[in-house]
Amino acid sequence: MTDSRIRPAVADDWPKIWPFFATIVAEGETYAYPDDLTPAQARDLWMERPPGLTVVLEEDGRVLGTAKMGPNRPGRGDHVGTASFMVDPAAGGRGVGRALATYAVDWHREHGYAGIQFNAVVETNHAAVHLWRALGFEIVGTVPGAFRSATHGRVGLHVMYLPLG
Amino acid sequence: MTDSRIRPAVADDWPKIWPFFATIVAEGETYAYPDDLTPAQARDLWMERPPGLTVVLEEDGRVLGTAKMGPNRPGRGDHVGTASFMVDPAAGGRGVGRALATYAVDWHREHGYAGIQFNAVVETNHAAVHLWRALGFEIVGTVPGAFRSATHGRVGLHVMYLPLG
Repeated sequence: MTDSRIRPAVADDWPKIWPFFATIVAEGETYAYPDDLTPAQARDLWMERPPGLTVVLEEDGRVLGTAKMGPNRPGRGDHVGTASFMVDPAAGGRGVGRALATYAVDWHREHGYAGIQFNAVVETNHAAVHLWRALGFEIVGTVPGAFRSATHGRVGLHVMYLPLG
Repeated sequence: MTDSRIRPAVADDWPKIWPFFATIVAEGETYAYPDDLTPAQARDLWMERPPGLTVVLEEDGRVLGTAKMGPNRPGRGDHVGTASFMVDPAAGGRGVGRALATYAVDWHREHGYAGIQFNAVVETNHAAVHLWRALGFEIVGTVPGAFRSATHGRVGLHVMYLPLG
């Protein structure tokens, strides 16, 4: 299952991540992040420290996508993981998201997590919902109208969960 | 609905909150907080800044409980609120939790929030689940086994939601 294009992110990767990170947040369809993040704030938010991990998928020197992963909660909740993904829209439709998601699932399993929880999957982000379902995630529930989509208005946020055997 | 015992928390309240805050986290039944929080870290976690708010319920100079409230997510999710509550176990059974919860619901309604989401209600915390239901919250879904209860082992975490009209 190892994809040789995926490796841990280093500080020098951030300038390659930031342009598409900013584009994706500005599109307003997938992430409830502050809309006035500086590059430094976004870097602190995205670049995980242990026990978490941030990775990039790089091809021919170009970063096509990134994922971060680690415990969803501290303390008595740290046996369940979570993950977030950003794929350069210019690299869409090439399986980058699936490769990163597969990496994240494998990473959590290898590190002994009991499962992976996504806290806020925008219900109109059909490509993501479809991919998570294909990987075995189920919708635990949907908080109605909890996300203001730029094009669809108030839409629900799914909580999704994948148990790891 | 105003309860005159409840007021915004000030810095001098923290030394009165910390003892029962620490007791509640150490009991391991209700909060997935880091188990090695210093008093200063716990203070930073609990004492909200605008647009959030932290309040205390004080009686005869004694702080019996505290609540924090504010947006559950930033950016395109900041129209849904959230809240957390701590009641001194020595003051249990006197309606302190209900008074603080009622305050939090009113506060969110007055500030124009569309609803209130609880992200992680421990399913074996029956008193809390009963109270939230009595206030109109519904269980959106339950993440199985996501909390390691000190006495019950792995139990579910409810996501609960109350729409505000």
